[in-house]
Amino acid sequence: MTSNIHIPEHCDHETFSSACLHDKVPPVVKTLVAAWKSGDCFEHVGPVPIPSHRAIIDIIYQVRQILFPGYFTRTKIYASNLEYYLGKETTELYERLTDEIIMAIRHDCRRTNQPCTQCEERGHRMALSFIESLPGISALLSTDIRATLAGDPATASSDEVIFCYPGLLATSIYRMAHELYLLQVPIIPRIMTEHAHSLTGIDIHPGASIGPGFFIDHGTGVVIGETTFIGSNVRLYQGVTLGALSLPKDAGKTLQHVKRHPTIEDDVIIYANTTILGGDTEIGARSVIGGNIWLTESVPSDTRVVLKRPELIYSGRKGGTS
Amino acid sequence: MTSNIHIPEHCDHETFSSACLHDKVPPVVKTLVAAWKSGDCFEHVGPVPIPSHRAIIDIIYQVRQILFPGYFTRTKIYASNLEYYLGKETTELYERLTDEIIMAIRHDCRRTNQPCTQCEERGHRMALSFIESLPGISALLSTDIRATLAGDPATASSDEVIFCYPGLLATSIYRMAHELYLLQVPIIPRIMTEHAHSLTGIDIHPGASIGPGFFIDHGTGVVIGETTFIGSNVRLYQGVTLGALSLPKDAGKTLQHVKRHPTIEDDVIIYANTTILGGDTEIGARSVIGGNIWLTESVPSDTRVVLKRPELIYSGRKGGTS
Amino acid sequence: MTSNIHIPEHCDHETFSSACLHDKVPPVVKTLVAAWKSGDCFEHVGPVPIPSHRAIIDIIYQVRQILFPGYFTRTKIYASNLEYYLGKETTELYERLTDEIIMAIRHDCRRTNQPCTQCEERGHRMALSFIESLPGISALLSTDIRATLAGDPATASSDEVIFCYPGLLATSIYRMAHELYLLQVPIIPRIMTEHAHSLTGIDIHPGASIGPGFFIDHGTGVVIGETTFIGSNVRLYQGVTLGALSLPKDAGKTLQHVKRHPTIEDDVIIYANTTILGGDTEIGARSVIGGNIWLTESVPSDTRVVLKRPELIYSGRKGGTS
Repeated sequence: MTSNIHIPEHCDHETFSSACLHDKVPPVVKTLVAAWKSGDCFEHVGPVPIPSHRAIIDIIYQVRQILFPGYFTRTKIYASNLEYYLGKETTELYERLTDEIIMAIRHDCRRTNQPCTQCEERGHRMALSFIESLPGISALLSTDIRATLAGDPATASSDEVIFCYPGLLATSIYRMAHELYLLQVPIIPRIMTEHAHSLTGIDIHPGASIGPGFFIDHGTGVVIGETTFIGSNVRLYQGVTLGALSLPKDAGKTLQHVKRHPTIEDDVIIYANTTILGGDTEIGARSVIGGNIWLTESVPSDTRVVLKRPELIYSGRKGGTS
Repeated sequence: MTSNIHIPEHCDHETFSSACLHDKVPPVVKTLVAAWKSGDCFEHVGPVPIPSHRAIIDIIYQVRQILFPGYFTRTKIYASNLEYYLGKETTELYERLTDEIIMAIRHDCRRTNQPCTQCEERGHRMALSFIESLPGISALLSTDIRATLAGDPATASSDEVIFCYPGLLATSIYRMAHELYLLQVPIIPRIMTEHAHSLTGIDIHPGASIGPGFFIDHGTGVVIGETTFIGSNVRLYQGVTLGALSLPKDAGKTLQHVKRHPTIEDDVIIYANTTILGGDTEIGARSVIGGNIWLTESVPSDTRVVLKRPELIYSGRKGGTS
Repeated sequence: MTSNIHIPEHCDHETFSSACLHDKVPPVVKTLVAAWKSGDCFEHVGPVPIPSHRAIIDIIYQVRQILFPGYFTRTKIYASNLEYYLGKETTELYERLTDEIIMAIRHDCRRTNQPCTQCEERGHRMALSFIESLPGISALLSTDIRATLAGDPATASSDEVIFCYPGLLATSIYRMAHELYLLQVPIIPRIMTEHAHSLTGIDIHPGASIGPGFFIDHGTGVVIGETTFIGSNVRLYQGVTLGALSLPKDAGKTLQHVKRHPTIEDDVIIYANTTILGGDTEIGARSVIGGNIWLTESVPSDTRVVLKRPELIYSGRKGGTS
C-alpha cells in the first residue's frame, strides 16, 4: 500500500504554508453544491424543519420516566407528590411530542408534495392519543416485567429488570413507537426503534404486533420484521430473526404492507440464533423451537422442534485438520 | 391499516383548540396513579434514592482513567506528576463509589424489608476493597492486552487495542464489575456490564469467572453466563454463547447460584457463532472449537472439534430454487 | 458465595471512621505507580497528546452534516445560503481534522521511535486530501442510499434511510475512515469504525474495499475484515462475517497486510448469519448465498448456494426430548 497523498499544485514542500492549502477548500465546496443542484446527491435544503434525533430521544426517556416513576430520576418522588410530578411531566411530554409530530407531518407533506391540511390540529390529536395510550402501555410493560422475572433465573428483582435489562428497554421503546405507528405518525416511530436497536442490538420494527408478557433474554442480534405477529407470553433469546423470505427483485414497493413476516402464537419459546422466515409461517401455541434452527414452514401447536445435530469431527490437536 | 386517531368529545374539528385537548391530560394522569396504587404496575416512589446510571457510568470511566493513565484524558500527565494525578483521581473515585454503594445497599435493604445495619460503614469498606483491588485489575488487563496483540494480526499496537478494541473495553468493565460482584455490592455490577453490553454487543454477566490473557475478537453477540468459568489465555470470537441449557419451567429462583454455564479450561480457542451450553459441559485445556457449532457435551483436552459441514446445494441462478 | 470484604487493620467496627479508611488509599496508588514504572502495565505518560475519542466523533458528525446538508441540524439551510453554510463547515472541519491528524502522527512517531519529520505539513496535506475526497464520498453514499431503497420493501423514503438506517450510518462512517486509511493516517480510521461498530453492531475494518451501491440490512453482528474486497451493488444481511481462516500460531505480525479475507464480486447477495472465510475465497458476480452457511471455498458467477437443511426433529411437547 503506497501513500496517495495528493500534493496540491503550487503547494510543494518548499513553499508550504497552511494558507496555500486553505485555498483548496472552496473548489471542493463548489463541487459539492453542484452535485446537489444536479440531483445526484441527497440534501434536505428548504424551509421545513425536521424532527431531531436528540428531541425524539429525549421524548423516549421522558415517557420512560412517566411509565416508571422514581426509577430514572434523582427527583425525590413520594406518594404525596406523585400526581403533581406525573402531571407536570405528562403535560410537558404532550407539548414536546406535539411539536415533533407536527414537524414530522409537515416534512412528510413536503416529501410527498401534498398540501399540509390541518397539520397542526392532526399533530395535537395524535400526541393526545399517544398520551391517552400511556396507561395501556404501562399495563403491558408490567406484564413484560413479570414475564422476565419468571423466565430468567439470574434475575434478582424487578428493579434489576427495569434498571438493567436490554430486553425490557427495547420492548419499552417498541411499545411507545408502535402506538405512534398505529397513529400513522411519520418517521418518529422508526427513529425510536432504531435508537433501541443501537443501544441493545435488538431490532424491532415499530409495525410488529407483540402481545403481553414478552421477554427477550440477552437480545443482541434479534430482528423482528414489520408484519410479524407475536401472541402472549412469548420468549425469545439472542440472535433470533423473525424475517421475510427473499423477495422477487421486481416486487418493489408494493410489498410494503403485505404480510411478509411470521406469526408466533401464545406461549412459544424460541432459543438462541434461530431464524424463522415468511409471512405464511405460523408457530403454533405452546411450541418450543430449539436454537440454531432455520425454519420456513409452519409448526403445529404443542410441538417441540430441535435440530438433528450435524456430525462433529473430533481430532487430536496436533494431528488434526486446520 | 386505518388511522385510529381518537377524536376527543367536544374537541371536534369545528371547535378545535389546543386548550380543549390539554383538558384531556389530567384524566390520563389519574389513571396512571391509580394503576400504581393498585400495585398492578411498577413504581419506585419513596424516600430511598437509588444509584443513577449516569453516576455509575462516570465511575466506569474514572476507573478506566486510573487503570490506563494518559489514554483517555487531555490532561498532560508526566512521570513527575503521575502519582499526584492518580492520588487525586483515586481519592475522588473512592468517595463517589462509596456514595453509590451506600445508595445501592439502602435500596436493597428497603426492597427486601431488612433493617439497614451499618449500611454506611459497609459502603465505605466495600468501596475501599474495590480500590485495593485496582492493582490486581490493572495487572490482569495487561495480560488481556498482550493476548490481544498476540492473537490479532490486524492490530498495529497496544495503543490501538486500548483505544479502539471493544473486546478490551468489555473485559475492562467486566473485571471492575466482577470485583464489586464478589464484594456483594447490589445492582451496580449489573448496571456496569449492561453498559458494556450496550456499547459492544458483548454480554458478560458480572458473576462469571475469567482468567488472565482473555481476548474477544469483534465480539458482537457474545454471551457469557453468570456461572461460567474460563481459565487462562482463552480466545473467543463474535457470536459465541456460553449459556445455560433450557430449564425446567418450575425450577424458578432456586437455580440462581447453581452452576448452569460451562467451564472453559486454559488456552482454549472458540471460533465465531459457536454455542456451548450447560453447567456440566467442560472444554478441556488447549482444545480448539470451530465456528458455528452447537455443543452440549464435554470435550477432552487437546482436541480439535469441527463441524462436518452440511451439504451445500449449488445451482445456476436462473434454473435454481428460490 | 461468601463476602470477602477486607477489613483493614486498625479500622475495626469499634473504631470505624471514614478517615481511617481514607488512609488506605495512598498505598494503592503507590502500588499502581510501581507497576507502570516496572513496565508490567500500560500507561501513556508523556508530553505527546493523543487524538481524543470525543474529537474524532465530533468530526464524524461534522462530515455527515456536510455530506447530508439539512438532515442533521436545526440550522435552516436554503438554496441561497447552502454554499456559505458548507463553506463554513468545511473550513472548520479542515482545521479540526488537521489538528487531530497531526496529533495522531506525532503519537505514532513517538510510539515507533521515529523522528517526526514534517509532521505538521503532513497533517495539513492529509486533511486537505480528505476534504478533496468529500465529493467522491458523497457520490458513493448516494449509490448506497439508492441501493437501500431498491433492496428493502419496508423503506418509506430516502429520508428514512438517511435518518434511521444503521447500515447507512455504518457505511457512511466506513467510507470516511477508508479515505483516511488510504492516506495512512494512524489510529483515527479505526477509532471511527469502532464508533460505528458500537452504534450499529456492524464491524467494518477501515482497510476493506467496498464498491458503490452497498446495502447492509439490519446489520447487527456483521464483520468485514481488513483485506476484504467487495464489488458494486452487493447486499448483506445481519450476522454476515467476511473473515479470515484460522491462522498458524507463529505467523504473527507478518500477516498484517496479506490478503486474509474474501473477495465478493458485483451484484452478490449474502443472507443472514452466513460466514465466508479466507483470502482465496471468491464469490462470483451475481451469485446468491443463502442464510446460515459456512463457506471457505470459492463460488462461480451466477450461482445460487443454499444449505441442504439439516433434519429437524418434531415431537409432541410432553413426550419430547429436552
